This record gives sequence, C-alpha cells and structure tokens, in this order.
Amino acid sequence: MENLGLAQYSQEIQDKVAQARQRVSDLHAELPRWGLVVWTAGNVSERVVVNESGPSTDDLFVIKPSGVRYEELTPEAMVVCDIKGQLIDGDRSPSSDTAAHAYVYEHMPEVGGVVHTHSSYATAWAARGEEIPCVLTMIADEFGGPVPVGPFAIIGDDSIGRGIVETLSNSSSPAVLMKNHGPFTIGKTAEAAVKAAVMVEEVAKTVHLARELGEPVPIPQEAIDSLNDRYQNVYGQ
Amino acid sequence: MENLGLAQYSQEIQDKVAQARQRVSDLHAELPRWGLVVWTAGNVSERVVVNESGPSTDDLFVIKPSGVRYEELTPEAMVVCDIKGQLIDGDRSPSSDTAAHAYVYEHMPEVGGVVHTHSSYATAWAARGEEIPCVLTMIADEFGGPVPVGPFAIIGDDSIGRGIVETLSNSSSPAVLMKNHGPFTIGKTAEAAVKAAVMVEEVAKTVHLARELGEPVPIPQEAIDSLNDRYQNVYGQ
Amino acid sequence: MENLGLAQYSQEIQDKVAQARQRVSDLHAELPRWGLVVWTAGNVSERVVVNESGPSTDDLFVIKPSGVRYEELTPEAMVVCDIKGQLIDGDRSPSSDTAAHAYVYEHMPEVGGVVHTHSSYATAWAARGEEIPCVLTMIADEFGGPVPVGPFAIIGDDSIGRGIVETLSNSSSPAVLMKNHGPFTIGKTAEAAVKAAVMVEEVAKTVHLARELGEPVPIPQEAIDSLNDRYQNVYGQ
Amino acid sequence: MENLGLAQYSQEIQDKVAQARQRVSDLHAELPRWGLVVWTAGNVSERVVVNESGPSTDDLFVIKPSGVRYEELTPEAMVVCDIKGQLIDGDRSPSSDTAAHAYVYEHMPEVGGVVHTHSSYATAWAARGEEIPCVLTMIADEFGGPVPVGPFAIIGDDSIGRGIVETLSNSSSPAVLMKNHGPFTIGKTAEAAVKAAVMVEEVAKTVHLARELGEPVPIPQEAIDSLNDRYQNVYGQ
Repeated sequence: MENLGLAQYSQEIQDKVAQARQRVSDLHAELPRWGLVVWTAGNVSERVVVNESGPSTDDLFVIKPSGVRYEELTPEAMVVCDIKGQLIDGDRSPSSDTAAHAYVYEHMPEVGGVVHTHSSYATAWAARGEEIPCVLTMIADEFGGPVPVGPFAIIGDDSIGRGIVETLSNSSSPAVLMKNHGPFTIGKTAEAAVKAAVMVEEVAKTVHLARELGEPVPIPQEAIDSLNDRYQNVYGQ
Repeated sequence: MENLGLAQYSQEIQDKVAQARQRVSDLHAELPRWGLVVWTAGNVSERVVVNESGPSTDDLFVIKPSGVRYEELTPEAMVVCDIKGQLIDGDRSPSSDTAAHAYVYEHMPEVGGVVHTHSSYATAWAARGEEIPCVLTMIADEFGGPVPVGPFAIIGDDSIGRGIVETLSNSSSPAVLMKNHGPFTIGKTAEAAVKAAVMVEEVAKTVHLARELGEPVPIPQEAIDSLNDRYQNVYGQ
Repeated sequence: MENLGLAQYSQEIQDKVAQARQRVSDLHAELPRWGLVVWTAGNVSERVVVNESGPSTDDLFVIKPSGVRYEELTPEAMVVCDIKGQLIDGDRSPSSDTAAHAYVYEHMPEVGGVVHTHSSYATAWAARGEEIPCVLTMIADEFGGPVPVGPFAIIGDDSIGRGIVETLSNSSSPAVLMKNHGPFTIGKTAEAAVKAAVMVEEVAKTVHLARELGEPVPIPQEAIDSLNDRYQNVYGQ
Repeated sequence: MENLGLAQYSQEIQDKVAQARQRVSDLHAELPRWGLVVWTAGNVSERVVVNESGPSTDDLFVIKPSGVRYEELTPEAMVVCDIKGQLIDGDRSPSSDTAAHAYVYEHMPEVGGVVHTHSSYATAWAARGEEIPCVLTMIADEFGGPVPVGPFAIIGDDSIGRGIVETLSNSSSPAVLMKNHGPFTIGKTAEAAVKAAVMVEEVAKTVHLARELGEPVPIPQEAIDSLNDRYQNVYGQ
C-alpha cells in the first residue's frame, strides 16, 4: 500500500500523531490483559484532529497494523490513516477493520476513539442477534439502556461502518454488537472506547450468567435514567 | 470537594490513618488478582477508630478515590472520610460508593472493613434477586447459611447503606447481594471483608455451575450450624 | 497445640522431612497457578516414610498450616504431623483438614501424597452428588473410569478420611468428589496427587460444558480399559 | 528408545533442525498462555524438509517429549523423529501422540506444523461428537465453514492419524475435533497450527455461549465464502 507520508503536516500535528501512537500502542495491551482478544484479533484507534476549529474530514487516525501479534506492538509499529482509511504513515498495512474505523470518524465527529474485539460473551449475544437488556446498575451507568445490535455486514467495504454509525446514532450506548461478528465501541478518547470494550464484555458475561438460571429482575426506566445521569455527570475526578 | 484535613487529629490517629492507607491500598490489589473487578470498578475501605473507648460516630475511614485505575492506587492516593462520608484528607474525590460505606460504619460499630465489587457470578444472582443456597460446606463455614439478597437501591443517597445494614443485621452472612447491583461484604478488618468478597464470588460460581446441570443436595441445618461453629471458632492460627 | 519435636528422629529422617517441606511448599504454588483455590483454601501433604521396611503407622507427613495465605507459604512454614495427625514439628497449627489426610496415610500405605481443593467445577459435581462419567480419553487415561462421589461428612473427626478411603479403595480413580464439599486426590507422591487435582478439575469442566448442550457420546468399556492400561504403563519418561 | 542420531544429515539440515527446535520450544509456551492445556497435556510439532525438491517421506519433525512439564521445555529437550515417528535425536521419549503427528506429515505434504490440545470448549464439542457451526465471521475467516468432527480412535497406533487426515482432506478447516478426545490442528508452519489451536478454542467457546441461551443466526453460504476468500488472501502483512 502506498505511504503518503506525514511531511505535508505541521510539526504540531506530527507531535500529536506521535503522542497518539504511544497511547494507541499502550491501550492495545489492555485488550489481552482483560481477556478481550486472542492472537492478533482486535484493534484500537484514535483520532488526531488536524484543524484548529475541531474535528473534520481532514483528520487522521492512528490504528493497529494488520495481523501483528500483541507483543510486537510498539508506537512505531502503529500506522496512520486519513479519514478515508488511506495509509499516510507506517511500515505495515493497516488493520483489515480500518474502513469501519474510518467511516465512524468521518460520520461521527464527536468520536475520538474506536475499539473492536471479538470478546466471547459480547460476541455470543451478537451471534444470536440479541441486545443485552439493562438489568444491572452497571449497564444503566455505562450504557444508559440496552446494548444494541447492529446489522450483519461483510468485512472490507464500508457496510460495517454504516451499521455502527446508524445503530449508535440512535442510542446512548457507546457499544454496538455487530451481528455474527462482535462488539465495536466508541468514546471521546481511545481510552474511553477501550473502557467501553471492557465494560460491554463484563455486562455481557454477567447478564449471560443471570439468564442461564432464570430471568433477571427489570430495572424501572426512571431508575435507569437517574443512574445514567449521575454516572455520566458526577462520577470520576 | 472541601478537604477538612487531619491536623485536628492527634499524631497517634494520624499514624493509624497512615497504616490504614497502606493496608487499604494493598488490599485493592487483591480485587483484580482474584478477578472480582474490571477497570476502576470496586472499592475497599477500613475504619479508623478515633476514641480510646472503641468504635463511635467520631471514627474515620480510608477509601479508594473515585474513577482511578488499579495500577495508580498508592497509599497516598487513598482518601479519608468522616462517618458521614465527608472528605477529611486526600487529593481526590472519594469513591461514588462512599455514602454506602459510611452508613455501614455509622450503624454497625462491629464492622471494621467494607468491600464492594460487581464480581460476575455474585452479581448474576443479584440480577435475579435470588439468594445463594447453603449447599456447600464452604458456604456453611464462611456464611453460616444462605447468602442473602438486599433491596434495589439508587446509588448516591444512603438507601444502599440502609439496605446493607438491614439485611446483614438479620444474617450470619458477611455478604449481601444488592439487587441488580452486586455484592457488598463486611468484616472485622478490611482484610476480612476482602476475604468475604473473594469467597462470595467463589461460592456464587460453584453453586451456579452445580445448578446448571441439576439440583444440589441440601445440607441439613444441624450440619450447617456445626460447620459454622467449628470454622468461626477453631480455624486459623 | 503441643509440639513434640523432630529430635527423636534420626538425621536421615530429619533430612527427608526437610526435603518434603520444600516439595510440599513448592507444590502449594501449583494450586493457585491452575485456578484450583482462592485465598487460603486447599492443602497438599506428603508422607515421610520412617522405617526402612517401607510405609507404616510410624510415618510422618508434611502439610500446610491452617489459614495461612499462599504467598506466605515457605518450607519453614509447613508443619509435620504423625500418622494420627498430632503435631510433631512446626510453629503453627496444621490445616483443619489434617485428620482426613492422616486417616488416608494410616489406611492406604501405597499413598504418598494427598491434596484437597474446592476447585469450582469438581465441587459443582460434588454439590449434586454426581459422579463424572468417563466420556473423554483423558478421563480413561487418568482415572480409568468415572470419578466417584464420596459421602457427606462433617469436618473435624475422621469421617472425611473414612469416606475417602472407602470410596477410593474400590476405584481406579485417584480422585473422589466428597459430597457438598469438594475433591480429594491421592498419588504415589505429592506431585502425583497435585496432578490428579489439576486433572479432575479439567475433566469436571470439560464434561460440564459438554453436558450443558446435550449428551456426550459414551466410550466403550474395552476402549476405556485399553486407554488406561497404555497410559499407566507406557506414558511418560 | 534407540536414538538414530543426526550425524547422517548434512550440516544444513542439522541447522534447520536446531531452528525448528527453538521455534517448537517457544510455541509450546503459547499453549498454557492461552489456556489450552494443563500440566503436561498438549503438544506442538514442526516438519523439517530434508530434500531440496520439497516435502517428502524423507522429512523429519521436531516434537515435545512425553510427560514433561511446560516450564522444563527448552530447545534441547525437544526430540526429533522421522516420518514414521522413529526417534532420531533427543534424550527423551517423544510425545505419546507422535504416531498421529507422523501420519499427518507422511500423508499431507502441504502440512508444516501440527498441534494437539484438550482445550476445554473444543473438547466439549468433541465429547458430543458435534461440529461447530459457522455462525461467526471469525469462523468463516479462519475455518471457511463448520469445524468438523473426526472419528473415535484409540491412542497409540495410526488410527488417530488416519482420522485426522481423512477429515481434514475434505474440509477447508485447519482444525478437527477428534471424538471424545480433543482438537488437532494443522498449518503451513507450526505457528499457523498453534494459531488454529487458539482460534478453535475461541470459537468453540463463543458458539457454546451463544447456544446456551438460544440459537445463533446462520450466515448465508455466499457470505461465508466471501469472508474466507478475503481473509485467506488479503489479511496480514
């Protein structure tokens, strides 16, 4: 794949790219740590805003190279793409999921990070095409309602990206379960998207276990709204 | 949040706080070690007795700051609150579960440590609002009977604390499964409460597995009482 | 507990005890490594043969002290008991399961090591009082048939020991699932008993998973016998 | 077992054997890392091509010794066999599964590596004699269709090898679930076979979880073919 290079960008942008390479490289280590991926599966990306006015279709993003094992992932190994998924900088081909990440950055300017895994429990819900019901305070906190299912889509063109954007644009959830495939998560930063990937697997597992032996108790809608509002606006430092 | 400071307390109390900070920081490492938490979820606290006459509403407690990741948890990062959950010392906001911990310390003077997690199997029972039946010698030993369920309660006010206290005051169990939420455990020390958190997940998992393929054999009540008596009074050094 | 001391034994026996302390200490690390125990649960012991003529009721055994955490287990922390479970050497009380280990050494002279855990899947079968059927070549290899269930027994007297001996004396299996309690395993050495503890959890898990979605295919009895004969007599170095 | 020695081979072949010993030793560490094996179970082998014209029945392969624990596995501990499974070089007996590996190398010249485990979820499907249906994009990618079941076969003669070859010769899958036994996987290299062993456990687990709570949505055959073609021909560097 042709490598267009970063020379056309200012030193400031090149510095932001270098910092994003470091963060994205570090965050990939979280995926095996929390048991979300095996072998080379899964990927994290982060948007680099190019214009001072804010996110635009001029933006770049940093993403994992294709088919490289987790212990070989260094900041230098990460690749840089433009908003259409074209390779801008890096020695290797970008992840085969790059088109999906690019589509999200192009159509959701508020998104600063995207993560994709095939974590087992979340993917099991995706295989049945079944949303995860909001029966835990942790789901109300993090997702504000059920974790939705996105359409079945073939890998390679932008049909996965479209499915993600259409599903998440109508949801308070930062996670979508792509049918027969696995979860994609978004966040204001790559770290927030990684957190959502960890959390969607955790709640997918817990509700799976609850359902194996009966029916979880529903949480009233007003309690869901109250929990989500508090968590999104009060929690943390 | 305003920081009232420890200067009003004697050097002896300040030393006890420093020791509790160390213990509570160390004990947080047990939560990911035993697979009880992901990301920043879960928290451990320990009471610091202020009066020579014993536990009182003058006591302090040390707790995890809110939304901080486990690898950043040092003794210095821990925060100190009074029995009403007001911040006394620390650079960060206390855990969003602080009100629940405070309520337990205020109303159960025999409690020296409190732990909260969303560990998967225990939370699955909590999602169904179903107590864990006493069908293992380990449950008789540690819990003296079934692990009870507490009411559904909104996070933030003292309704969680009240639910914990009301449920555990009528039980030999050091663990309560708060409905749709997860387990809270108590102990004479923070270490004992952490042990109860580890054990409640272990028995929640084992009875879950047993129930998946049939019905566990009940243990006669007199055997439960005999096991619990022996364990609580003879076991250990 | 009174400490009778090792001074009455020859230097050769004292050296054998020291070696057994090292082995038993090392082998305890295998229990958390393979996920068989949490906190202080579980214990390993090894027989020390005292008479030149072979195993007898004069023998000693080395076992874990009671209620001590795995990271504190050193060769020096291990305790030495006689065949009646009386403390001979060590600064701490022996495991609360000592009477069961002692009973096995007294009544099964061919046994050189005993292990007890509450590993989750094996204990789930024990909670239902259900033997693990021999539906895997690994079970035929290691156990020579189903893994049997032993009676419910109260901890503390020798009723657990009697249940283990009665069940394993009539079985090719080195593992017994004590009802509502958990697995005990035996071996010619403590290492062999630890291996059996690892293997019984592995097959308990695999057959559990198989049964969750249907019925495993039975293995013909002559194939079981052939597999077990080959494995016990040919396998290894 | 008689050790025929490597002296009859050229220095070039001896160098290739040394490199294969290193790779096979390193790859064994992947089996416990991904939770595929316990204790000494499981083995990896790699073909060493002897003739310049390509794979032939003159080839050698490097394999794990029998009954040796994973932490003792060094390049020097590996053993070298000829295509009939006879020991050529090494201080220990080859794995008890050597005959099966040898049969595959003899009858499938395109195979450069073979792996065998008893990983829990894959073996659970094998215990029921049930293929893993292709209901995930990851299965379409890696296996090109369902993961097939091979016949029940006694260990020791070449009946396992024949079952593997007959099943995989009629399948796009690099993995076969040998009935009541466990998975065998093949690849162009030992690393590719290890990857297939990791992936078959991952998909066995995910489809197991999906099936526990309902029926996975089927993927249309043309989508399976399209995914597999893209993955096998485009993915990676």
